[in-house]
Amino acid sequence: MNVVNIIRSKRDGQELSDADIDALVSAYTSGDVPDYQMAAFLMAAFKSGMTTHEMVALTRSMLHSGVVLDLSDLPGIKVDKHSTGGVGDKISIPLAAIVSACGVPVPMISGRGLGHTGGTLDKLESIPRFSTSMDIPAYRSQLADLGVVMIGQTDDIAPADKKIYALRDVTATVEFIPFIAASIMSKKLAEGIDALVLDVKFGAGAFMKQEQDARRLAETMVRLGEAFGTKTVALLTRMDTPLGAAVGNWVEVAESIDVLGGGGPPDVLALTLALAAEMIVLGGKAADVREAEHLARGVVESGAAMRRFEALVRAQGGDVDVVRHPDRRPGSAAVSEIRVPEGVGGYVTAIDAMAVGLASVALGAGRRRKEDAVDPVAGFTLLKKPGSVVQEGEVLALVHASLSSGEHVASAGADLLAAFSFGEAPGEAPPLIVDRLDATGWKRS
Amino acid sequence: MNVVNIIRSKRDGQELSDADIDALVSAYTSGDVPDYQMAAFLMAAFKSGMTTHEMVALTRSMLHSGVVLDLSDLPGIKVDKHSTGGVGDKISIPLAAIVSACGVPVPMISGRGLGHTGGTLDKLESIPRFSTSMDIPAYRSQLADLGVVMIGQTDDIAPADKKIYALRDVTATVEFIPFIAASIMSKKLAEGIDALVLDVKFGAGAFMKQEQDARRLAETMVRLGEAFGTKTVALLTRMDTPLGAAVGNWVEVAESIDVLGGGGPPDVLALTLALAAEMIVLGGKAADVREAEHLARGVVESGAAMRRFEALVRAQGGDVDVVRHPDRRPGSAAVSEIRVPEGVGGYVTAIDAMAVGLASVALGAGRRRKEDAVDPVAGFTLLKKPGSVVQEGEVLALVHASLSSGEHVASAGADLLAAFSFGEAPGEAPPLIVDRLDATGWKRS
Repeated sequence: MNVVNIIRSKRDGQELSDADIDALVSAYTSGDVPDYQMAAFLMAAFKSGMTTHEMVALTRSMLHSGVVLDLSDLPGIKVDKHSTGGVGDKISIPLAAIVSACGVPVPMISGRGLGHTGGTLDKLESIPRFSTSMDIPAYRSQLADLGVVMIGQTDDIAPADKKIYALRDVTATVEFIPFIAASIMSKKLAEGIDALVLDVKFGAGAFMKQEQDARRLAETMVRLGEAFGTKTVALLTRMDTPLGAAVGNWVEVAESIDVLGGGGPPDVLALTLALAAEMIVLGGKAADVREAEHLARGVVESGAAMRRFEALVRAQGGDVDVVRHPDRRPGSAAVSEIRVPEGVGGYVTAIDAMAVGLASVALGAGRRRKEDAVDPVAGFTLLKKPGSVVQEGEVLALVHASLSSGEHVASAGADLLAAFSFGEAPGEAPPLIVDRLDATGWKRS
Repeated sequence: MNVVNIIRSKRDGQELSDADIDALVSAYTSGDVPDYQMAAFLMAAFKSGMTTHEMVALTRSMLHSGVVLDLSDLPGIKVDKHSTGGVGDKISIPLAAIVSACGVPVPMISGRGLGHTGGTLDKLESIPRFSTSMDIPAYRSQLADLGVVMIGQTDDIAPADKKIYALRDVTATVEFIPFIAASIMSKKLAEGIDALVLDVKFGAGAFMKQEQDARRLAETMVRLGEAFGTKTVALLTRMDTPLGAAVGNWVEVAESIDVLGGGGPPDVLALTLALAAEMIVLGGKAADVREAEHLARGVVESGAAMRRFEALVRAQGGDVDVVRHPDRRPGSAAVSEIRVPEGVGGYVTAIDAMAVGLASVALGAGRRRKEDAVDPVAGFTLLKKPGSVVQEGEVLALVHASLSSGEHVASAGADLLAAFSFGEAPGEAPPLIVDRLDATGWKRS
């Protein structure tokens, strides 16, 4: 392999061979190609673009850079879900329990919060003693016994992705759809799943601000999934307003428990059921999404989904008592109320998800740097959402935090209030789920 | 400075500010910006392009990354010449002596051979004991006393260029006109010259294969020179065939001595006089190139140019005796004759300069790697040039080498022969000097 020739070819817009891409990724992962050559390659690809063939080769090389799980000896069609990230996005938690309770095995490998978005791992770990790390044999055996397992990415899955991601972050090569898609899909495909449902978000609180970019990302990931024989469906969803009322870690788990109990905010329930229906169809437990959604509602109403969640918490060492009685969790009282300011009334017209996400990070619910710890009980409860009628002095939102740092709480509260817009009319309420994509194309199901 | 933002701006085709470019170059030179970020920047600029304003800023930052000589206290208009590199290009040697003998101070800082091309320093060092390294005070005082000095680039001139060039070489970002121009001009402008003549070559044996690219490079360098108040003239010249008969180090010095003695091959003489005339006009010693060329011919005929060259050799420690009697140089006998093959006759129609350059490197006259030593006497004498009538068995060329390695010599000889094309008609002889550019535009003078 001549690295300079590979970089030059990509620079000049030529299509690289599978062998070239694989040699480059392997040599970079092993340290034989230095960062500066990979950086030049990443920028050359960013600017020249990549063909589908090249993206498949890149994903394959990254996927095979570490352990590739094989779950084919376990019964059932294994289905996972991935979200491109948003604010208040706790969907994975009720979703995994519901889909698993419908008989579809769910092996879920999730990430931590980064930037303004939360992460499923941080949320699960707000359940006292819940462990998200597990070795591969334990992971397989929990999946076989319980039908659901939720852990973090291990170091031996797709190490090339980890190394390339860190380099992209410091070389202005993050926002490139082929790299984003290859990064997500290489990790997901290494899990040994049979099918995948993607929640691809766009809007103020998403990484993709433009709907068109989110559509392209969804198309790229569905194409990659199909190229590896993994059936992939994507829902295109709006992320302008935080999902649900809770933003944080423990507050989001508590809201997930509400959903499993048959309650919860309507947007969270709707998105959970829509994603669950896709997973249940892919898992072969229903003929269409209508039937699948009926099944999903059934396991919520019967309590089977809640029991599955409690079993998951128990299997992973978590405190089932606080799951049954969320108000018993230590240190989770609201510490401050945010009220509608003087002279303001009418309707909440918008809540800027990005601003809420950043305020929750500032409060301690998220990370400024990878190595930061998160405050499990820090977060917000949004008592009013766009369309709500509000009056001067009314409580808009609650601030939660374990820290008694008054300054922190006051400034996060001010930031949270600034995220609200008010008006005399309720404003439009555009649909949350905008479109649906599978291998046959776009079509709202 | 936020390096990622600078890379992102360039990636997205925005024009960078002078402050951003200067901060980036300074931080890279000092080691505060790592190679991988500079590599991403270089590729982003390569793909997005650079405006004239950005190129000026880049050149300024590189020029000021080290020592900037100030020769303004020395009398006269100091003029240097730079060639973009070719095969058999020994022009600097007779040129510096002729121009200096006409009263124009010539402070010349040259490079070593790289790739298939030779370097003036390697050629000068083939004169026994000739030294091309000197500290700045000695350089200034020789220029003041003698009117000519020829040394190599010191570590303290434009260190940013040295570091960036090494990175470009391994990241496929060499062939980009703004970088090539900034690299050449930053070094030349740091020399403290008042005016500059450029020999910009195109063709099989040049770095720019296409005339159009060489024109763009010339335009860019003239624009940069003018932006820094340094009058700059470029000649656009053809480099398909090696210049002159000699290709190597000592053989080229010997040919330069022939030119200074009033002889030498017609192409070498013509290009030397054309470049000399431009330098003499810029140096204020003639009103136009016609008058200047007359002056240049005069110092050759009078022997003043030869005496100036001998004085230069003496001042820099070289052996004046071998300059006066080139055949006395030890170890410089021809070791092999290359003959016209059986069944071949007619005319030489072409000699591929790139092939001759590579054969001379293989023989030891050039470097495969920067750290290689060169064989001072290795080289070729081309006894026949395009247009020459040849007969079967006639001697076409001589091979010189100090090594007695028969294999080396035989394979270089075979490669040299393969560089010749023969035909039944003499073929076309396109002009060597194609065009001329100054701040007012292109026009063959």
